Amino acid sequence: MSKPVLNVALVGYSFMGRAHSNAYRQVNHYFDLPFRVVPKVIVGRSEGPLKVAAELLGWEEYSTDMAAVLKRDDVHLIDVATPNDSHAPHSIAALKAGKHVLCEKPLGLNVKECKAMVAAADKAKTADGKPCRVGLWHNYRRAPAASTAASLIADGKLGEIRHVRAVYLQDWLLDDSCPATWRMMSKTCGSGAHGDLNAHLIDLTRFMTGLEFDSVVGLEQTFIKKRKNADGKGMLDVDVDDTLLFLAKLTNGAVASFEATRAAAGRKNHYCIEINGTKGSIVWNFERMNELEVYTVEDEPRHKGFRTVMCMDGSAHPYAGNYWPDGHVLGYEHCFINMLADFVKALASGDEFRPNFADGLANQEVLDASLASAKSGKWVTVARSQKLKPAKALKAVAGKSLL
Amino acid sequence: MSKPVLNVALVGYSFMGRAHSNAYRQVNHYFDLPFRVVPKVIVGRSEGPLKVAAELLGWEEYSTDMAAVLKRDDVHLIDVATPNDSHAPHSIAALKAGKHVLCEKPLGLNVKECKAMVAAADKAKTADGKPCRVGLWHNYRRAPAASTAASLIADGKLGEIRHVRAVYLQDWLLDDSCPATWRMMSKTCGSGAHGDLNAHLIDLTRFMTGLEFDSVVGLEQTFIKKRKNADGKGMLDVDVDDTLLFLAKLTNGAVASFEATRAAAGRKNHYCIEINGTKGSIVWNFERMNELEVYTVEDEPRHKGFRTVMCMDGSAHPYAGNYWPDGHVLGYEHCFINMLADFVKALASGDEFRPNFADGLANQEVLDASLASAKSGKWVTVARSQKLKPAKALKAVAGKSLL
Amino acid sequence: MSKPVLNVALVGYSFMGRAHSNAYRQVNHYFDLPFRVVPKVIVGRSEGPLKVAAELLGWEEYSTDMAAVLKRDDVHLIDVATPNDSHAPHSIAALKAGKHVLCEKPLGLNVKECKAMVAAADKAKTADGKPCRVGLWHNYRRAPAASTAASLIADGKLGEIRHVRAVYLQDWLLDDSCPATWRMMSKTCGSGAHGDLNAHLIDLTRFMTGLEFDSVVGLEQTFIKKRKNADGKGMLDVDVDDTLLFLAKLTNGAVASFEATRAAAGRKNHYCIEINGTKGSIVWNFERMNELEVYTVEDEPRHKGFRTVMCMDGSAHPYAGNYWPDGHVLGYEHCFINMLADFVKALASGDEFRPNFADGLANQEVLDASLASAKSGKWVTVARSQKLKPAKALKAVAGKSLL
Amino acid sequence: MSKPVLNVALVGYSFMGRAHSNAYRQVNHYFDLPFRVVPKVIVGRSEGPLKVAAELLGWEEYSTDMAAVLKRDDVHLIDVATPNDSHAPHSIAALKAGKHVLCEKPLGLNVKECKAMVAAADKAKTADGKPCRVGLWHNYRRAPAASTAASLIADGKLGEIRHVRAVYLQDWLLDDSCPATWRMMSKTCGSGAHGDLNAHLIDLTRFMTGLEFDSVVGLEQTFIKKRKNADGKGMLDVDVDDTLLFLAKLTNGAVASFEATRAAAGRKNHYCIEINGTKGSIVWNFERMNELEVYTVEDEPRHKGFRTVMCMDGSAHPYAGNYWPDGHVLGYEHCFINMLADFVKALASGDEFRPNFADGLANQEVLDASLASAKSGKWVTVARSQKLKPAKALKAVAGKSLL
Repeated sequence: MSKPVLNVALVGYSFMGRAHSNAYRQVNHYFDLPFRVVPKVIVGRSEGPLKVAAELLGWEEYSTDMAAVLKRDDVHLIDVATPNDSHAPHSIAALKAGKHVLCEKPLGLNVKECKAMVAAADKAKTADGKPCRVGLWHNYRRAPAASTAASLIADGKLGEIRHVRAVYLQDWLLDDSCPATWRMMSKTCGSGAHGDLNAHLIDLTRFMTGLEFDSVVGLEQTFIKKRKNADGKGMLDVDVDDTLLFLAKLTNGAVASFEATRAAAGRKNHYCIEINGTKGSIVWNFERMNELEVYTVEDEPRHKGFRTVMCMDGSAHPYAGNYWPDGHVLGYEHCFINMLADFVKALASGDEFRPNFADGLANQEVLDASLASAKSGKWVTVARSQKLKPAKALKAVAGKSLL
Repeated sequence: MSKPVLNVALVGYSFMGRAHSNAYRQVNHYFDLPFRVVPKVIVGRSEGPLKVAAELLGWEEYSTDMAAVLKRDDVHLIDVATPNDSHAPHSIAALKAGKHVLCEKPLGLNVKECKAMVAAADKAKTADGKPCRVGLWHNYRRAPAASTAASLIADGKLGEIRHVRAVYLQDWLLDDSCPATWRMMSKTCGSGAHGDLNAHLIDLTRFMTGLEFDSVVGLEQTFIKKRKNADGKGMLDVDVDDTLLFLAKLTNGAVASFEATRAAAGRKNHYCIEINGTKGSIVWNFERMNELEVYTVEDEPRHKGFRTVMCMDGSAHPYAGNYWPDGHVLGYEHCFINMLADFVKALASGDEFRPNFADGLANQEVLDASLASAKSGKWVTVARSQKLKPAKALKAVAGKSLL
Repeated sequence: MSKPVLNVALVGYSFMGRAHSNAYRQVNHYFDLPFRVVPKVIVGRSEGPLKVAAELLGWEEYSTDMAAVLKRDDVHLIDVATPNDSHAPHSIAALKAGKHVLCEKPLGLNVKECKAMVAAADKAKTADGKPCRVGLWHNYRRAPAASTAASLIADGKLGEIRHVRAVYLQDWLLDDSCPATWRMMSKTCGSGAHGDLNAHLIDLTRFMTGLEFDSVVGLEQTFIKKRKNADGKGMLDVDVDDTLLFLAKLTNGAVASFEATRAAAGRKNHYCIEINGTKGSIVWNFERMNELEVYTVEDEPRHKGFRTVMCMDGSAHPYAGNYWPDGHVLGYEHCFINMLADFVKALASGDEFRPNFADGLANQEVLDASLASAKSGKWVTVARSQKLKPAKALKAVAGKSLL
Repeated sequence: MSKPVLNVALVGYSFMGRAHSNAYRQVNHYFDLPFRVVPKVIVGRSEGPLKVAAELLGWEEYSTDMAAVLKRDDVHLIDVATPNDSHAPHSIAALKAGKHVLCEKPLGLNVKECKAMVAAADKAKTADGKPCRVGLWHNYRRAPAASTAASLIADGKLGEIRHVRAVYLQDWLLDDSCPATWRMMSKTCGSGAHGDLNAHLIDLTRFMTGLEFDSVVGLEQTFIKKRKNADGKGMLDVDVDDTLLFLAKLTNGAVASFEATRAAAGRKNHYCIEINGTKGSIVWNFERMNELEVYTVEDEPRHKGFRTVMCMDGSAHPYAGNYWPDGHVLGYEHCFINMLADFVKALASGDEFRPNFADGLANQEVLDASLASAKSGKWVTVARSQKLKPAKALKAVAGKSLL
């Protein structure tokens, strides 16, 4: 193949590193891209596990020297999949080195970090003087059902948006024997369920509705305040939330409620959003990610109701045509492949790619405001330091089969 | 009120007697009828429980003398709610006495009995020389969702019908300590789950699709062949099915499958029918009786899927407007009230009432054919001794509030 | 029958008057009560419609003179089913006249009214010097599934409660041509969706968890601020909420979120509560009122998940045994019958009946606090002027058949 | 890595070729296997598309010379993913050449072909004299939920099996403009929906219950009997079923019903099986493949109901631990990866691998019997030419993370 190569370096090889690696391995096999994507080098601190990770996750090389990797001409894209506290330093270093960057969410630990990242992205140039491109791994936007929801709303099928209600419920921290990790210490994660899960709810709200946040009021709780250290030695103070709920006023007068928790018994990855407008409603629950519920007021009265749409019709639902026939369901990992495909296309076309670092900053402004509100007990106005246009709705590209 | 009175005599006060009584007590309060319906006299064999039943179920009088009741000029309608083996004698006697009759399903024990009942109904006249009117308590037709399904199909929303699949699953006979009753002896019930539950599936198929049955092949099984007598003395041979499944060819080439069982663990009253046509599909599950699932191929591809329709919009769904605001759900007993209201209206208007005894005979012809097939191991052609037109689809009468 | 009679007078004959009337007509037929309940006299202002209502709803008499009714010795119980602004005057007058009172919810327009009602109830005596008894029509407590949820939680099956999230979503006010009624003017209704629907969410939370509210923060919105007058003449200012959301801290540190709206497209009567504890969770959605979802952490890992429980097993689920066999679903109106039966039993036994006026006051304290918060933009501490014990969990009385 | 290599040759690169290729590319990244699996060479007839397929699907080489490929020492496993009529010749040739074989289902066109394939498999030896190993791509067995169902049943959680009901519903042939392909001509496919979809239902029934089929009665229909040729030239007679339903008696007296169709409007890939036993029930619907519904009679009466189990707990559900954290759903393609992993492990361990060609023959005996029955109109006894033991239930290997 005469396609140019896009060599990738990945830093981090835990949960997110695995999910991103899968996308790099798979994307060429499902999408007709302007580049041949190559998982080139995986980067970390400890050679032993790094070598295993390279083999297992399909990377050609591994390296413990990030600086050296950044100097390589044959590395074009840096993927940051480390804990939250190193998103900013890795991303900024990569941008300074003239690399494109895909960063795991949340963008940074706080608004200040995020602003620095946006600034770095705005001025970064590749070796040949073109702007560096950045993306944020809010993968769920690229589930076919989520993209379909956004396109229905963008086309006015729901009318004016009135309500958003979204919850992200897990239960793994119910167990008080579950040890503390970086996800339970503010210095490494910023916040708890909030930054991890509410970040997704905020992103999906912004993506689906095209609306921004005006002001918020929050409530947080940490049910288990000490957990044993992961190394078994002693106890650690948990200084982040187990749960954080907040109410919001959106820019058009719509009202919204959000809740993230890791303590809802029986809820494994219950990530559910409902949006009501003057002409219709949608509901999406990630645990049934291939289905979208859609209600339209114009439907015939005798059979008006929430439709359960299987979003796998290649002619109607984005990304569906790149995989299997209708009804042959996709899973969690496909969202990453889809997003990567879009990013790679945008690299070649120069078209805008969303979510980018500016989206990450906008998201963090909501996160910081609601966290501050939870601590102060007051409504907090969301700083909207940027003027972002809504992301363009994704369209289904009628499934030209790749074979 | 100057309305004429319709006095009713009910024979039987077990499960069905209770459900019918409820309808007679309630119908005047929810429907504006041409008669004031009066639960006049309840009839049975034993004075003791009968007296209690009269009080509890709301009947003005009780009597142990059916013949005497039939002679009364002030009794207009006889309701037969006894075990299956007395449906024919009671109904025929009532018709001979010039009474209107509402009979519990199945109409009789077998086709022969049913034919005699149809013949009796055809020639019976009231005291003033008008035809006696008859109805069969296939109450489920009058659930708002079931009626809506029929009207959608009658209007061509599903196109040509291709498939019917229907199951009626219960589990109360799983328990081998459950004693034998009249429902487990062929001389009193005709057949087991078959005549009890498949009768409903056949009726709903005929009602919703307007199609009849061409031929059938059946399979029956009795898992527990001896049960203790209800009086605790000794064991009884169960000579009817615990389950009976059959396949059918319908009159337009559609294919259908049916299954009735009382041995499906966890299924309490799981009565579910799915109908697929060339333009759409419906699914109705009685355990969620207020909901109807509807799929139409013409819906927009992006949001094409099975709708879950709450059938309680008074302007769109039959009967809904007579009760509560949208979304305030109805229950099992409302089907009986609805059917009674329609019957009483038909008494005054002279309009056809369905299901009538001819429907009961058509139903029994399918029941007998499939039971015979289960015993012979051969496909059996369904005797279609009558030419019945499909019942008219029920319409929503836009909810003129009664207050 | 030698049972003493309980004669009832009902004031109001709109939606709630119809639902209460149904309960008075039906309760003797489904429950073995210490009194024979008689719907004696219906009270209102206009003789014309009142006469129709008496006939249609099954009342022996009608009267336009409430004072005269209150003086009658043969009237024992007053049922208040009028708009919110007359709950207090009617109830207090009835109590002063020595009558038992069942009042529609919300108890009053505000805390002040509710306190006066509680005070009146506390000192009222019947003609023979016994305390007058009062109840509040929070009927949903008596759905078999809701009662089952409360009993599971009372027995510790969910462990310590951590989360409550509840929504009550309707869509009838989406339509801007829907005219203004008393439900959209604060002087007659107190508040909008809030007092109507959040009142139910608060009651169910208190009932199911046995917890009280510490503090709340609210957000309200009125999307359509002018509506045409019901008489067609001119426009009216809507001065109550279309939607009100609030977050709450409960007395044990649990967090909770609530939302009431009449503008959620496609949601007819979507009244859904989820409660998560350290050992399990429940979900109840009124639109599938016979089902309760239950998760328990102790279940075997291979088949651990939310159960969909059909709450109609007479031996296990309260009230179920009084109606139909398992799986034959109940509807909205049965909750009223069940509550009435419990109230009548409590009249005879002297046992506590809940919810009573004190519950109505506790509820109103939460309503007022969250409404005040929505207006002030601050967290508000809930006045807890009473020390209420949790209501006792309702038990299934193993279904002794009434026949 | 010092792992031995397992080089694979794949014949066929349409739908199934793509799904198998994905498994070969991915299996090393999710499972710790005794071999390094290498997608070595893809085989077909036309060099042009073959070259594209090799690149797109990730094969090192391509070849139009199957005979030459079979002679290569460095090819160990042949995967047959061609239309049904070449399963037998390719598989038998591969076995004669001493290769292991994984064949797409159904095994062959008819029982005769299947027997020849079983015979070939029984005597085939690899170059070093060991038995050749064979597997059949009934991938759905390896969905975590399906495997969990089988293990629950094998452990007696459902008691004695009484009922199986299974449907596989699609709707792509509703459209009469859909052209004829090899799937609609008996000489290439054997039968229509029957061999394609009922084959899955039969396999899952055998796998989950461990029971075999005694006798069957079938009903088939072809709704659209002529379709245009795929090349646009003229019309073709469709000589296979659009739908085939059959009833069955299983070896222990259980009764079962099956239906396959490609004409059920709105059903995309609705593959649903329900199994009822004396102690419980399961339901599995592929379109929600990560969920399993489980009912057990021993559960506490108050909360007895069908559980919706998310089968992604690595410690409880087979394969789940190899992918993502609980609740992060898997898709269609993972079933293939899981099956391949099991096959590769069995190659090294020598343990039995199921489903094998004997399973394919047993399956075909049911397919042929029910097809014959549909044509003859008589019950047909299923030839059970082999004595197969039930496959061992698959266990969850507590998720040792690969990193």
